[in-house]
Amino acid sequence: MIVGTEWLIEAAECDAETLRDEVALRDIFDRVISDLALKVVDAIWHTFPGEAGVTGMALLTESHLTCHTYPEHRTATFNLYCCRSRPEWAWEKHLKRSLGADAVAVSVIQRGELSERESRSEVSNFKSHRAGGDA
Amino acid sequence: MIVGTEWLIEAAECDAETLRDEVALRDIFDRVISDLALKVVDAIWHTFPGEAGVTGMALLTESHLTCHTYPEHRTATFNLYCCRSRPEWAWEKHLKRSLGADAVAVSVIQRGELSERESRSEVSNFKSHRAGGDA
Repeated sequence: MIVGTEWLIEAAECDAETLRDEVALRDIFDRVISDLALKVVDAIWHTFPGEAGVTGMALLTESHLTCHTYPEHRTATFNLYCCRSRPEWAWEKHLKRSLGADAVAVSVIQRGELSERESRSEVSNFKSHRAGGDA
Repeated sequence: MIVGTEWLIEAAECDAETLRDEVALRDIFDRVISDLALKVVDAIWHTFPGEAGVTGMALLTESHLTCHTYPEHRTATFNLYCCRSRPEWAWEKHLKRSLGADAVAVSVIQRGELSERESRSEVSNFKSHRAGGDA
């Protein structure tokens, strides 16, 4: 039984300073939430000390949105899990602009499904594409 | 650059009542966190009204742990994302016992990686196995 869709997003070669900027990351959340008409029940944010990154987690009526940033690797990852049908968000375009990412990969997985995950058919269940870098 | 490992867990044919029991779900989180020596920074929980399910989200120093339950479909899904190496947790065994799940699927994905996700090699990047039902 498919109960939701989860997008897993990897953003590489980002601007390290921006990955330490909680406000910038909250802005991305706000944009996703607004564009996809999601509803936030609660959210928690944490900026780790020193040169470490930021974690954001939003509990949505539609499931969840999370991010983790790794300034030391110029990488950010996001998860968007929706138990209701939602259009694709333009992750590549937005993360290139907001985080300075050179490359963004978006994967989609159907949640709750057991049968197709047993076999190698997860290929069809786990679609991935990469946006080429601007560099 | 691999920045973490995420386990995606699907539990099917669970006991519907237990999927509405936030205390039972918090107990599962406590067990995972204790067994894997994870550290919770903050956590948010929400029990949706009526016959709907429960969402739990824990922000960890190691990344995150989330769950969503769907009593109407007797299904629960979990995500465990760790930016530090951790052993496999015995999801099948524990969720069969705690949620009465008949079948549990655990998938593993490496986060932050772009190159292997471009091609169909995500098969090797996205390992899945299913524990057979007890029924």
